[in-house]
Amino acid sequence: MQAKALPGFREFYPEDMVFRSHIFATWRAVAARYAFEEYDGPPLEPLDLYTDKSGEEIVGQLYNFRDKGDREVALRPEMTPTLARMVGARAQALRKPIRWFSIPQLFRYERQQRGRLREHFQLNMDIVGEAGPLADAELIAAALDILRAFGLGPREVQVRVSDRRVVRALLLGSGVSADQLNLAFAVIDKSEREAQGALADQLARAGVTKRATDAVFEVAGLRGLFAILQALQSLPDGETIGEPLRKVHDALEAMGLAQFVQVDLTIVRGLAYYTGIVFELFDTARSLRAICGGGRYDHLLQQIAGIDLPCVGFGMGDVVLGELLRTRALERAVSRRLEVFLVAVSAEDEQLVLRLGHALRDRGVALEYALRSGSVRRQLELAAARGAPRAVILGPDERASGLAVVRDLRTGTESRVPLTDLEEGRLS
Amino acid sequence: MQAKALPGFREFYPEDMVFRSHIFATWRAVAARYAFEEYDGPPLEPLDLYTDKSGEEIVGQLYNFRDKGDREVALRPEMTPTLARMVGARAQALRKPIRWFSIPQLFRYERQQRGRLREHFQLNMDIVGEAGPLADAELIAAALDILRAFGLGPREVQVRVSDRRVVRALLLGSGVSADQLNLAFAVIDKSEREAQGALADQLARAGVTKRATDAVFEVAGLRGLFAILQALQSLPDGETIGEPLRKVHDALEAMGLAQFVQVDLTIVRGLAYYTGIVFELFDTARSLRAICGGGRYDHLLQQIAGIDLPCVGFGMGDVVLGELLRTRALERAVSRRLEVFLVAVSAEDEQLVLRLGHALRDRGVALEYALRSGSVRRQLELAAARGAPRAVILGPDERASGLAVVRDLRTGTESRVPLTDLEEGRLS
Repeated sequence: MQAKALPGFREFYPEDMVFRSHIFATWRAVAARYAFEEYDGPPLEPLDLYTDKSGEEIVGQLYNFRDKGDREVALRPEMTPTLARMVGARAQALRKPIRWFSIPQLFRYERQQRGRLREHFQLNMDIVGEAGPLADAELIAAALDILRAFGLGPREVQVRVSDRRVVRALLLGSGVSADQLNLAFAVIDKSEREAQGALADQLARAGVTKRATDAVFEVAGLRGLFAILQALQSLPDGETIGEPLRKVHDALEAMGLAQFVQVDLTIVRGLAYYTGIVFELFDTARSLRAICGGGRYDHLLQQIAGIDLPCVGFGMGDVVLGELLRTRALERAVSRRLEVFLVAVSAEDEQLVLRLGHALRDRGVALEYALRSGSVRRQLELAAARGAPRAVILGPDERASGLAVVRDLRTGTESRVPLTDLEEGRLS
Repeated sequence: MQAKALPGFREFYPEDMVFRSHIFATWRAVAARYAFEEYDGPPLEPLDLYTDKSGEEIVGQLYNFRDKGDREVALRPEMTPTLARMVGARAQALRKPIRWFSIPQLFRYERQQRGRLREHFQLNMDIVGEAGPLADAELIAAALDILRAFGLGPREVQVRVSDRRVVRALLLGSGVSADQLNLAFAVIDKSEREAQGALADQLARAGVTKRATDAVFEVAGLRGLFAILQALQSLPDGETIGEPLRKVHDALEAMGLAQFVQVDLTIVRGLAYYTGIVFELFDTARSLRAICGGGRYDHLLQQIAGIDLPCVGFGMGDVVLGELLRTRALERAVSRRLEVFLVAVSAEDEQLVLRLGHALRDRGVALEYALRSGSVRRQLELAAARGAPRAVILGPDERASGLAVVRDLRTGTESRVPLTDLEEGRLS
């Protein structure tokens, strides 16, 4: 006997599924407003689709195996490589900029992390073929509008926006050498979570000068667009380097979203492939991991598909978002509700229930009736258990008079409605 | 560079996804009318969830492997074992009858069958906890209503309904022994596709008498409810045995679906677990495999979850259905359409485009604009390529006058609409 699902895999009972469907429907509704088209790819992919991008070390985190045809395969841990391949295969034919979204289920297997989920669903939205900052702003706005569509405001969620080109320029300009850059980025990434002393020691051990080390922490401490643009003024091409970040900020302001935006260079994003603007959405209480992360990755299509097209995109998972919606009591998921329950008084009335029931369903009415003869009381109990707002009672009297009893199951009030009206979908 | 998906796996480009979403939306709409609730389970399951039900031979058809935690696992080849486990785990708490549906992606790996798909999506609808024939009729009606919702009528699709209890009784009553039953069922299953002589030889070799062999072909040849009920009259409890099939037939007739129904005992369904009513939907041209198959399987929950609850259900895949809809030119999938494209005459107008665009999206309007400055002509070309029905042109004159030009991109006609109207979602 099989008592359990695999560890880390969720089962979605109807009440969980209503919540999941609510999240998916909101994702799709906002994506439609932004004129994004949905796509999907295989959940199982050749392993080297991921190792080519992320190196062999990624294998430690994958659900990978050798299939019966001796192929090395993996359950997809992310969607971007699939997107890159699909766009690459039709790069000439597709009209740019490409605006695509997908809601894949993604899989990770990290042996050490017991109790953590090994799958989740993730909205992926990407714009391919546009290098300018309006594309970055468009995606940040879409991510924010999704959270707004769930009823969240700037007191609950914020987006932090950075630009790796700016960070890089500021670091190089203050004496960090090119080969110290990765370490400096890592220190900036950790600067909010770890003690400055320990981080400074790390830099010192790598040969970063005292002056440059101070600069690293200064960069990490810059808050707001104005402070960053001012710091850039000390560089010869500072204004040009600051331009994309300024434009993203101004575009979000024009859209009326400024109150959600923090410009803040500590957002680094772990993945090595981001090349420009990067951003993260987070809850202001900071009780959860990031709700959404993304940015510009202009070299990935070259690497995976051999095609030079700039990209910007983000991923938003269903797990952190779901926790946020639950903790904030914003779980306003509404399922498609049962509209009416038909009750047969006697076995002789069942044919009428079947006929009327089918006629109403043909008109799109969500409807149920008992699948076995039983007392009226028992049928009404089932109707109530299902949450039906009303019951239509059909018995010999109703057949003779051509008038059915329609009972409001919340108030208990009853009315009589002609059967001919009911058949045409008029329930009251 | 990764040029290809794994063999047998589909990539869904936006135009394919529109079609798939149309199928899923129709499935969900009809399921809602029938008051079914959606659930989902893990795409990866313990291997023995399937071997316990179907025996070790199933492993030859599975995507199975050993995971990093040394568990034998498989990508789900079907949904029913997951359903059985989930229902079993909450059998007491769930109100019966349980009416659930799911749209899982399913996986099979058969080494020999090159060129065939290794994944497909399948609607699963099941009623658990009701043994009576109205439950069977309910599911057959739902399957038919799905095809009707796609615009198909009785000239295009039919359902063939049988009852294994009837076949069994008729066979035993005419001299087939209990241990010859499985072979006799197999012969009936093949009776339409293979020559009668060869099948008769098979029966003879297994020791089936001449009289019983004739009876097997007679049973296979019975057409229509009346002929079957008549044949049952020769058995002492024939009327009782024929009752469920008769009730299913009568219920479908009461629902107005009789013209879709063929009662025909050659529908056997390969899976060993069906116990009563079985049915298949097929295209009348018989150019495709079955569109949908299902039936009653009253012992599976006992076997998988140790709980005695009767079940009836069906599966309907997206591949055969998709072929049918395409061949019949019923591919009426309509995507959520782009409603308006905003055009900025000069770079100075971009802020207005962003502001107005965001205001309209907040009102649910599906909207796009160029993400890079360019000539009006170029922007209108992109609008046309995207299929936008209208463009709103915003330039210095429009800002000064407070009136935007709205151009109908199909007719070329233009009108002037106050910006204040546009901001409130009035596009004309």
